[in-house]
Amino acid sequence: MKTYPILGRIQSPADVKALPEDALPALAAEIREKLLETVSNNGGHLASNLGAVELTIALHRVFDSPRDQIVFDVGHQCYTHKLLTGRFARFETLRRAGGLSGFCRPNESEHDIFYSGHSSTSVSAGLGLATAKKLEHDEHYVISVIGDGSFTGGMVYEALNNGGRSGTKHIIILNDNKMSISENVGSFAKYLAVIRSTPQYYTFKASTERTLSKIPFGTKIVHGLYDLKTQIKNKIYAQSNFFEDLGYRYMGPIDGHRIDILCDALQAAKSVNGPVLLHVITEKGKGYAPSESDPSTFHGVAKFDVSTGAGGKGAESFSDCFGRLLCELAESDARICAVTAAMGLPTRLCAFANAFPDRFFDVGIAEEHAVTFSAGLAKNGLVPVFAVYSTFLQRCYDQLVHDVALQNAHVVFAVDRAGFVGADGETHQGLMDVSFLSSIPNFKIYSPYDFALLSRDLSHAVQNETCPVAVRYPRGAEQSEATNKLVLQGLTHALYGSESADTAIVTYGRLSAEAVEAAELLHAEGKPVLVLVLNQIKPLPEEAIALLQSKKHVFFFEEGLRAGGAGEKTAAALLEQGFSGAFHLTAVNDCFVPQGTVQQQMEQFGLSALCMAEKIRKEM
Amino acid sequence: MKTYPILGRIQSPADVKALPEDALPALAAEIREKLLETVSNNGGHLASNLGAVELTIALHRVFDSPRDQIVFDVGHQCYTHKLLTGRFARFETLRRAGGLSGFCRPNESEHDIFYSGHSSTSVSAGLGLATAKKLEHDEHYVISVIGDGSFTGGMVYEALNNGGRSGTKHIIILNDNKMSISENVGSFAKYLAVIRSTPQYYTFKASTERTLSKIPFGTKIVHGLYDLKTQIKNKIYAQSNFFEDLGYRYMGPIDGHRIDILCDALQAAKSVNGPVLLHVITEKGKGYAPSESDPSTFHGVAKFDVSTGAGGKGAESFSDCFGRLLCELAESDARICAVTAAMGLPTRLCAFANAFPDRFFDVGIAEEHAVTFSAGLAKNGLVPVFAVYSTFLQRCYDQLVHDVALQNAHVVFAVDRAGFVGADGETHQGLMDVSFLSSIPNFKIYSPYDFALLSRDLSHAVQNETCPVAVRYPRGAEQSEATNKLVLQGLTHALYGSESADTAIVTYGRLSAEAVEAAELLHAEGKPVLVLVLNQIKPLPEEAIALLQSKKHVFFFEEGLRAGGAGEKTAAALLEQGFSGAFHLTAVNDCFVPQGTVQQQMEQFGLSALCMAEKIRKEM
Repeated sequence: MKTYPILGRIQSPADVKALPEDALPALAAEIREKLLETVSNNGGHLASNLGAVELTIALHRVFDSPRDQIVFDVGHQCYTHKLLTGRFARFETLRRAGGLSGFCRPNESEHDIFYSGHSSTSVSAGLGLATAKKLEHDEHYVISVIGDGSFTGGMVYEALNNGGRSGTKHIIILNDNKMSISENVGSFAKYLAVIRSTPQYYTFKASTERTLSKIPFGTKIVHGLYDLKTQIKNKIYAQSNFFEDLGYRYMGPIDGHRIDILCDALQAAKSVNGPVLLHVITEKGKGYAPSESDPSTFHGVAKFDVSTGAGGKGAESFSDCFGRLLCELAESDARICAVTAAMGLPTRLCAFANAFPDRFFDVGIAEEHAVTFSAGLAKNGLVPVFAVYSTFLQRCYDQLVHDVALQNAHVVFAVDRAGFVGADGETHQGLMDVSFLSSIPNFKIYSPYDFALLSRDLSHAVQNETCPVAVRYPRGAEQSEATNKLVLQGLTHALYGSESADTAIVTYGRLSAEAVEAAELLHAEGKPVLVLVLNQIKPLPEEAIALLQSKKHVFFFEEGLRAGGAGEKTAAALLEQGFSGAFHLTAVNDCFVPQGTVQQQMEQFGLSALCMAEKIRKEM
Repeated sequence: MKTYPILGRIQSPADVKALPEDALPALAAEIREKLLETVSNNGGHLASNLGAVELTIALHRVFDSPRDQIVFDVGHQCYTHKLLTGRFARFETLRRAGGLSGFCRPNESEHDIFYSGHSSTSVSAGLGLATAKKLEHDEHYVISVIGDGSFTGGMVYEALNNGGRSGTKHIIILNDNKMSISENVGSFAKYLAVIRSTPQYYTFKASTERTLSKIPFGTKIVHGLYDLKTQIKNKIYAQSNFFEDLGYRYMGPIDGHRIDILCDALQAAKSVNGPVLLHVITEKGKGYAPSESDPSTFHGVAKFDVSTGAGGKGAESFSDCFGRLLCELAESDARICAVTAAMGLPTRLCAFANAFPDRFFDVGIAEEHAVTFSAGLAKNGLVPVFAVYSTFLQRCYDQLVHDVALQNAHVVFAVDRAGFVGADGETHQGLMDVSFLSSIPNFKIYSPYDFALLSRDLSHAVQNETCPVAVRYPRGAEQSEATNKLVLQGLTHALYGSESADTAIVTYGRLSAEAVEAAELLHAEGKPVLVLVLNQIKPLPEEAIALLQSKKHVFFFEEGLRAGGAGEKTAAALLEQGFSGAFHLTAVNDCFVPQGTVQQQMEQFGLSALCMAEKIRKEM
């Protein structure tokens, strides 16, 4: 059992402030110890949290949370904040059912100001909070802590465009670790590199001014320099970099692992009358050799061995299978491109990127651009496949409508993490995609239940379809023992059990295995049921719905939102066609689903095989 | 009848190229004449189109459309393009049913490359098109024409971040008229002003280099200048402005009303090996005195008198009513803020902006930021009201989910133009909001049918609710003659007709008046029906649904998408409760709705009073 002599006594930020300065490096070391201990057990975001330890200590030394409000972008760097704001004792519950969230969650602590989980929102949120404080004559500060990766998202610019001249006490900390989830992409990253390479920036500004002031105007030798001086002042001094052009007082870059320097800079930022951008350089994965040398792999991790950094090898996942299939398809079809929004590694596009670098596009954390860019590729004859988590596809709904569907562009969406996602919790659940994609004209949606069907759906989407197509699949592995019993009926649906049974179970995706198991339980009790599994979710296959028309009981189970889901659509279609049986819809109804295991989440909403069987028994 | 001796003979861009240079000013004058003639009759976007006449002529002189692909952002400046690409003869059909679209529409012409209508998409689309050309070894150019207003949208930065080092033949034309729909806001506009004020930019770069090269290093007098020179080169010369920092070759600013200069610059842009940003300065409303002096009013207009610029005064609209009500509420409640994404004028927030300037926030064309910023305001105790068109609310779906609903933030959404919008056509229809808002936990939706109910709903949303609330209302005026017959049942629903009738009509919003009229027609024929009008759309009021349970026929009419709409939800709720009658749902089913009058659109989808009555007669 590890002991935490300093960290263990921190109950609140006041305790951080009370520590003598020379105890802070030891505090940082204990925090890293605790992060490693917990994340290696529970999984979570490691490298980004290791990089923000000193920064977070400094924030709580200088600011007065929660009166000063700290907003963490995405939340990949908020663990130290949790440890310093009264959550040390509960930290081993991280990411577990009923435990601490891996992101900021306001109902968990008054120090968690704003939900986090999706990228690039913290500057907008912080500006709103700071503007309210200004209107309310509250003199406290709002601090947005945001990584350089999040700066690839366009919302940040929308916010900067509004914030620079807002006159608010808004301090943006650009936590620049030269990375987002994977190595950072695009021109802005290169621009930051230029700024980083000028650590004498302030000194330069000051000395330039001194030098210019010494130039003796009027001498022949500097003829023409007066104009130049003015222009230099206009160009370099007054608007030296992008942030200052937008109205922020730029400070930095400074070493983000020196608590003393950080505290000085934060104090200086407080003294500025107006919004500030403080540029802090950190090392992702700092303090743990395996994550220092490979921060991408240690961005988000499952349980691993601290001594070696090695994680367990799980079974092949739907993501693995997708990555493999797309490479195979691309071998023989030069039209196929892969697009990712900074998620090449987790969506398993690395092999594609290596094999077809010209056709691989990592656009940064920029889902909107990814979609419209893909539509452009498609309009000129390519077949882009955008691999994206269900929860992040929400970020480009209008681009799906206006730039893809309206053009009827042949863009394929590989929608990963569709359904419950487990420990990441409410900000990351993939429960909305069926609802919002179903509302979009021209779209088709497939929801394969095993790898073989994923392969058929993906090939079909790429090779045969000419419209927008989403192929959605869950986190984790297939459950082929159960789903192998399903008999596929073309690409639209599959069946198991007795077609003549009075009772039918209808479902799709991961729940297909649960439905087969539930049917087996009921069969064994002499209660025959038909299992109808939808592969094609939109349009709903009429021939499959027709099979239900004569049933006495239809039980629809949906791992997704009730509102706008396939269950409601099936109900409406049945009712319009004169269905007179009983219809029972089980789905996630108008709520956000907190963290837990996927199995816990399925049980919570009555979607496991046992829950299905129990519900049906009650009615039969 | 006006004659168009030059314009009338232009059948294609080849004819533009064939004109002698000295005929071009006359062509521009004829185009302006035609724009005024048509827009004053049909309504449409005037000021932005008047500003882009010379630019568009130059584009078609220099480039080879459609092999070179021109993508217009939003499409507010594409009318000249239409006139020069074979659509002069049909131009009087602009914005009419079956006629030319007011935006770019690929199925209208091979010269319309990409649908337009929503802002800030053209750089992403253009980069996709250009990247495909590069992969396909097609040497033609892609040109994105985008206004400075659209640069307030974050997608543009996402695209620039990817495009600058793409090595594509992508030319971005920044059509800078110092305006978006209303006067441009934010720091970026100020930054452009700085660039504009340096018309000698290129000259400056060249002469600076010369000056620097003449400094005799080593003399005492310029001691220390060597370092300075290097740094000046790094800072000014190599990365002179934001666009060059991102990897674009910046050219400009140039006069956007001089065709000769424009053609020279476009030729120069073609000769660059890589992506270019050409900065063109134009005057919004150019060439028509009323629009030159008041470009905001002439941004989008209804029919008007060309000689005076005066439009007809319509009846008070829902937008007018909303603007008035919000001012009244804000008088006595200092928490109320108004937020708009560059739509202060059309959403009728001008009076609010004048009366409460500190509480009015025009954030630019930045819907995502608007929503998350509003969530920040709300979290610190204010009550932001975001006034937004239904179609543009699509652009911030994830912010509604992740930043508003998950926080359960009390943000009020005044959703204008909900339902059919008429002449703006498929890109602007407000037919999706009920579907996508219904899918979001914690949200409430109200859909008032007249001004009195709008007033009650808005007051309730602001004063009594503590969750996210959308109050949605249609374009145009109330139809109180019919809706006054409805009897409101609390805030959830209203009734008309016989509660004991076997048949019920269910609807909401603007269709309420149609439903009352249909019921009157049927009553007169001895066919009693109950009209149930929903005011509260989410959650569906259970007590209202219960009224339907015993009906033999329920006819649901929905001015919105079927998928995920209130009709499907009502069907599912009825079926689950054992409803055994017939259910008939009429809605917009899985298609985009082209332009026409609102009345034409209602008839097309069977939603007018006569269509309702006819449908019911057939079943009764």
